[in-house]
Amino acid sequence: MRALLFDPQPIVRRDHPDPAPAVGESIVRVRLAGICGTDLELARGYMSFRGVPGHEFVGEVVDTRSHSLMGKRVVGEINAGCGRCARCREDLARHCPDRTVLGILGRDGAFAEYLRLPDENLVALPDSIGDEAGVFVEPIAAIYEIFGQTGLGPGTKIAVLGDGRLGALAAIVLRAEGSAAVLGGHHRDKLDRLAGLGLEVQLEDHLRPGFDVVIDCTGRSAGLNRALTLVRPCGTVILKSTAAAGTALKLAQAVVNEITIQGSRCGRFAPAIAALAAGKIDPRPLISAIFPLDQAPAALDAAGRPPNFKVLLKP
Amino acid sequence: MRALLFDPQPIVRRDHPDPAPAVGESIVRVRLAGICGTDLELARGYMSFRGVPGHEFVGEVVDTRSHSLMGKRVVGEINAGCGRCARCREDLARHCPDRTVLGILGRDGAFAEYLRLPDENLVALPDSIGDEAGVFVEPIAAIYEIFGQTGLGPGTKIAVLGDGRLGALAAIVLRAEGSAAVLGGHHRDKLDRLAGLGLEVQLEDHLRPGFDVVIDCTGRSAGLNRALTLVRPCGTVILKSTAAAGTALKLAQAVVNEITIQGSRCGRFAPAIAALAAGKIDPRPLISAIFPLDQAPAALDAAGRPPNFKVLLKP
Repeated sequence: MRALLFDPQPIVRRDHPDPAPAVGESIVRVRLAGICGTDLELARGYMSFRGVPGHEFVGEVVDTRSHSLMGKRVVGEINAGCGRCARCREDLARHCPDRTVLGILGRDGAFAEYLRLPDENLVALPDSIGDEAGVFVEPIAAIYEIFGQTGLGPGTKIAVLGDGRLGALAAIVLRAEGSAAVLGGHHRDKLDRLAGLGLEVQLEDHLRPGFDVVIDCTGRSAGLNRALTLVRPCGTVILKSTAAAGTALKLAQAVVNEITIQGSRCGRFAPAIAALAAGKIDPRPLISAIFPLDQAPAALDAAGRPPNFKVLLKP
Repeated sequence: MRALLFDPQPIVRRDHPDPAPAVGESIVRVRLAGICGTDLELARGYMSFRGVPGHEFVGEVVDTRSHSLMGKRVVGEINAGCGRCARCREDLARHCPDRTVLGILGRDGAFAEYLRLPDENLVALPDSIGDEAGVFVEPIAAIYEIFGQTGLGPGTKIAVLGDGRLGALAAIVLRAEGSAAVLGGHHRDKLDRLAGLGLEVQLEDHLRPGFDVVIDCTGRSAGLNRALTLVRPCGTVILKSTAAAGTALKLAQAVVNEITIQGSRCGRFAPAIAALAAGKIDPRPLISAIFPLDQAPAALDAAGRPPNFKVLLKP
């Protein structure tokens, strides 16, 4: 099959082996896949990843032993746990020490014609959610995770740092859930586009301290230090950036102001699918381009270039 | 009066001006003061502090307009807020933006014959708590703060990193409250002494990952990275180290494992005084030496040298 490989440089192969069916797993034909900041980090060496990247997708189940999944249009939770350890039994497969992660850790991903995932990871997509909205289920779920990690309400003063894909999506989801945030970024053109979607935006340098919650979606390791200067004492910083490089953190600031720094990664799909199905959230204005899989290296390049937000791949 | 000054080098002055009484404040004659890791950091340039350091003390009120305080043996909350802002009204003077902090920020401290503090900061010490135990009220309160910040119980698997003053005190308090921790350190002689107090100790390199809560009392900025490798996914790191230097934090680890990093500074005095008065905690075995104030530079030196724990100053 055709697939993008990080080997470690991105290269499209036409003869990559099809995924072999494994017990309890289904084969999915990828219909549409999304490029995420993590994919760009993987290309820079994060996780020393080799293989097919990609973890945001909508696909169709084409080979499975599950009658209920056969032929279904699906999205997929990306963490595949061992199914036996304490974490897996607590429904925390994403923290299973022996997990594989689609397109990130020990498992080929979605920038290919086909992928395989455990049956229990696959979730049927309602007909009301098209492929172009459905491909956002995974990152939207990651935003919903925040609501379970910290208290957010209509009165919470929230800043989102970063005018990229994830920051924009965070601002959209927060507004839909009645916890509107101000989004701070460095790119005037991107901020203008986000303002056009009705979001409150601000040049990042103009943000003033005093936020109850600051969500770092900058994708840069320096984002945390900036967040620590903007959050109020006893406030919370949500850390969404998985940057490969370390940063010199100003620890004392976090201690003196008794800040909570909350690492935040994946979330459960149900609230994301429900919000999309109900029309509460429409992420499609964030789509900047759709590339054929054959042009995946160019797509990665575009995904890293402002003013682009989400770049999709169609196998 | 005699006082230790950071100017910026530590020097004992015999002609430092006595503190002048201010409205709503009392003058306290210092009976005994404790040297804390923060004092050593101030000497290295943290907070660009100039003046009299010292924020752990027992003293006697010698000049006041408060009848209830006159002549009393007291300890003192170190943060003096403006009394008018939202934080002060919430009883969070320690986060008042215009606060002074005894011996740390804009207010001369306890390594002197006399100090001044607002009347409301002073708390009478019960007769059952001697000076040598009472001087620990401030750091013990800082440990009790942890209980309000994260869930701790008999089943919680806790590691304390750092075999210094604060780490030892944390282990003692946790054990007294039924949440025994394993204390990890680098100094075999100090660990042996702490084991002799009945604490569970371990060479830090021998600690294995999987703790629910890791409390960083290393005083070194690298302590956080070590804590991040030891805490379980979705666990909590309590950050107690106010180190002047920044450290290269491995952010991705905190995000992927969805760790909560909780900055933690001062606490309220009431639970600390109650525990000391009830004899639940006896910190006196941690006293390594008592120096006269005139020898304060030598005392600072001793406080920074293993296997010493707490070094006290007697004006």
